[in-house]
Amino acid sequence: MELRTLIREAPVRMDRPVLIGGLPGLGSVGRIAASFLIRELGARRVAVLYSPHFPHYGIVNSKGVVRLPKNEFYYWRGGSDGAELLILTGDCQPQSPRGQYEVALRILEYAKSKSVELIAMIGGYSSEERERPRVYGAANSPVWMERLKGLGVEVDVSGVPIVGMAGLIPALARSEGLDALCLLGETVGYMPDPKAAKAVLSVIRGLLGLELNLSNLDPDIERMVELKAKLKEAELRMERAMRRADEGPRYIS
Amino acid sequence: MELRTLIREAPVRMDRPVLIGGLPGLGSVGRIAASFLIRELGARRVAVLYSPHFPHYGIVNSKGVVRLPKNEFYYWRGGSDGAELLILTGDCQPQSPRGQYEVALRILEYAKSKSVELIAMIGGYSSEERERPRVYGAANSPVWMERLKGLGVEVDVSGVPIVGMAGLIPALARSEGLDALCLLGETVGYMPDPKAAKAVLSVIRGLLGLELNLSNLDPDIERMVELKAKLKEAELRMERAMRRADEGPRYIS
Amino acid sequence: MELRTLIREAPVRMDRPVLIGGLPGLGSVGRIAASFLIRELGARRVAVLYSPHFPHYGIVNSKGVVRLPKNEFYYWRGGSDGAELLILTGDCQPQSPRGQYEVALRILEYAKSKSVELIAMIGGYSSEERERPRVYGAANSPVWMERLKGLGVEVDVSGVPIVGMAGLIPALARSEGLDALCLLGETVGYMPDPKAAKAVLSVIRGLLGLELNLSNLDPDIERMVELKAKLKEAELRMERAMRRADEGPRYIS
Amino acid sequence: MELRTLIREAPVRMDRPVLIGGLPGLGSVGRIAASFLIRELGARRVAVLYSPHFPHYGIVNSKGVVRLPKNEFYYWRGGSDGAELLILTGDCQPQSPRGQYEVALRILEYAKSKSVELIAMIGGYSSEERERPRVYGAANSPVWMERLKGLGVEVDVSGVPIVGMAGLIPALARSEGLDALCLLGETVGYMPDPKAAKAVLSVIRGLLGLELNLSNLDPDIERMVELKAKLKEAELRMERAMRRADEGPRYIS
Repeated sequence: MELRTLIREAPVRMDRPVLIGGLPGLGSVGRIAASFLIRELGARRVAVLYSPHFPHYGIVNSKGVVRLPKNEFYYWRGGSDGAELLILTGDCQPQSPRGQYEVALRILEYAKSKSVELIAMIGGYSSEERERPRVYGAANSPVWMERLKGLGVEVDVSGVPIVGMAGLIPALARSEGLDALCLLGETVGYMPDPKAAKAVLSVIRGLLGLELNLSNLDPDIERMVELKAKLKEAELRMERAMRRADEGPRYIS
Repeated sequence: MELRTLIREAPVRMDRPVLIGGLPGLGSVGRIAASFLIRELGARRVAVLYSPHFPHYGIVNSKGVVRLPKNEFYYWRGGSDGAELLILTGDCQPQSPRGQYEVALRILEYAKSKSVELIAMIGGYSSEERERPRVYGAANSPVWMERLKGLGVEVDVSGVPIVGMAGLIPALARSEGLDALCLLGETVGYMPDPKAAKAVLSVIRGLLGLELNLSNLDPDIERMVELKAKLKEAELRMERAMRRADEGPRYIS
Repeated sequence: MELRTLIREAPVRMDRPVLIGGLPGLGSVGRIAASFLIRELGARRVAVLYSPHFPHYGIVNSKGVVRLPKNEFYYWRGGSDGAELLILTGDCQPQSPRGQYEVALRILEYAKSKSVELIAMIGGYSSEERERPRVYGAANSPVWMERLKGLGVEVDVSGVPIVGMAGLIPALARSEGLDALCLLGETVGYMPDPKAAKAVLSVIRGLLGLELNLSNLDPDIERMVELKAKLKEAELRMERAMRRADEGPRYIS
Repeated sequence: MELRTLIREAPVRMDRPVLIGGLPGLGSVGRIAASFLIRELGARRVAVLYSPHFPHYGIVNSKGVVRLPKNEFYYWRGGSDGAELLILTGDCQPQSPRGQYEVALRILEYAKSKSVELIAMIGGYSSEERERPRVYGAANSPVWMERLKGLGVEVDVSGVPIVGMAGLIPALARSEGLDALCLLGETVGYMPDPKAAKAVLSVIRGLLGLELNLSNLDPDIERMVELKAKLKEAELRMERAMRRADEGPRYIS
């Protein structure tokens, strides 16, 4: 029983996987993208990370079983060229600046022990509603910046702080000699945004040469479009009702 | 003089008590239930827990003596079958995520040293006013989930975070090889809710085969009903007065 | 250069001083009382406490010199019977629950090293404006409770948390085998309240048999009475002006 | 991979540089002043400080490269008399009181290892708009107070807490036997204020006998004047529009 960030891992041999991370954040872009990869590729869980800097609650899973909040690593090897992915996702991010640094360092330590040389963290980029959300990117080396540009990624985000693990892990990776990227999908951010996740996944597909059928995200995207339309309608109704209440009874106009 | 969470315990031999915990929280459901068990069974105090993660105040007891905020363990052995309970209650919960993890681990350490194999944490479940509050439950093993269902407990709370010790202790217990449950009584939550506590205690009575006269909680329940009625009346009066003030003097209607 | 709470002390021999503490808090009651004692008795500084849990600022003293926020101990021996006081006061209280526990323990350690056997912490008790503010008290032993009652102190504060060092130090003192009291002067609390401080000092004078001319606080009390009157007047003026603005121009009444 | 404040330094020999620090804060006065010195004197970077108490984000630099938030030291030796400056600036300040103390102590440790004997921290002093912003100052020794007065610095700031590194470093420096000053330029504070920075730099120029062409700050100052004028205009337009909306349609006056 220890009070520190710890990883429980299965003994899996990896050669040089790419670490792709998507944790809760703006528009749930990272988490949706990571979950999609895991589901679509059939990746299997190889490690679990617990931390006393995670929120202090128990989560009830679909079988009614209560468990700690956690981050997880899933591993996949496949394709014609034996590409390898180590996918990081989870319930939460650490709750304090110091906790963020501690967990990020622990993740990098694990990544290095598994011979990871490239990390891509996925997140959301706060923006307005857009038919085709853009993908913003940054890297911790000029070489990767060029590759991102070649894939149509917007790299003009200088000065912007990328808050949380999506920005902190790539920044810390630099001093560990690891290449790392952030890929941020444009999103309004207040609701889960599978369309932004799809945009980022499309870049990752190009970057790593993965075979991924991204149209499998379309049903989720449609559901969100419908949900937003309903919300908008409800808001309008509410607004009209309030305007009438404001005006009050008018016996004489 | 040490700056860490510590337990001062009396040397009591226990065989395999069930740990039942009720700490301050939503509707005070846990604390009311634990206090009732202690009073009704005549359990005696066997350990006290102090922590620098508890709030920074002194509390004045009924004799005017000022003391630290604390958590306490009470022990009871009884009934025809020599059932054993170790009851956890207290003034407060730790004030930070990290403090919650530290205190929860310390409690589990103590529980294991006393051969506890089953833990039931009691709390409140935010809901609307209801004639017969339901009890929501979760467990850290499927076996116990089934038993809870058999006792009429609602187990459909997947995805909901159970914040604080009521959720964190069962979640942490899992990695310590201990069975653990949460039992949450439906409550509006802004006032002490003995009716919700009674609902949970009724489940616990069934679960552990305890002889408990729960009608001893009825006077408290009635007092709360009266108090709520008075509050409601006062609110209505206030509202009417404010409406009149808003309207202002009307010389001509 | 260390990152912990530390005390720098002059090598002063004490026999069995009473520690009286007054730190910033409600109505500045504690700090006013402690400062008065230091000034009136001519106590001299014997120790300074610094802590990384204090606020992160520099304070500029009356000579323009910038210094760390700190707590200080002043020592006085005098009177016909050679009474001894160790008076604690300072700029601030620690900023977090854990910091409060750390600093309180460090203060108790120092007190024990100086053979202190009795501690009286002074604070404010939130109440309404009153011609003669009452003094509320608590102790960490029944014996002292009785003595407080004999001095007209209200001891019926059960259940109330006494937040900050005024409550935490007496509560922690108990496990260190030290007798300790809180003495809380009734105060509205939003402004420095020398009248409440005078009420508490009057109890302390009786308790320890000190010779103190408390009327030396009267000029401060009068200044506050005047200041409050001015504030009230300004508030009334503001209120009237706003009411007129609300009403707006009225061409037809 | 360590979780503590650390400095990576180039092996540069210094004789007795003056440390001048300007970190983000009110009106960005310190940061603007430090950046100006670095640019104008052509100082070169000699050390970088990272801390887990800094904010948990990655920052994207002008080349699109993501990096950790950091503080930096720049060194300059020059002039006819071989004056030496060690200039501290950076992206951020630590996020908690304890973090502030940790980083401040680490900076002082580095300063001592480089034989620094005098520190001047630059910041902003909250005030109203003023044609010629004054400079407020404090020192940790009476000798330096006198010198500041001689340069027209306002030293009457007793009782005011100087929050953050600008106040904490000089206050801590005292116990390390280092002379230290704060120089605070008057600023409204909600926008970058190069005029306040210029006022402080003018004092520093006099204090250290530096040759500095401060008129190079004038274009920045003019840009801010224009920006403020535009903002004001926009605010006025907005206000007028809202007033009209409030009034609503008036068919009959």
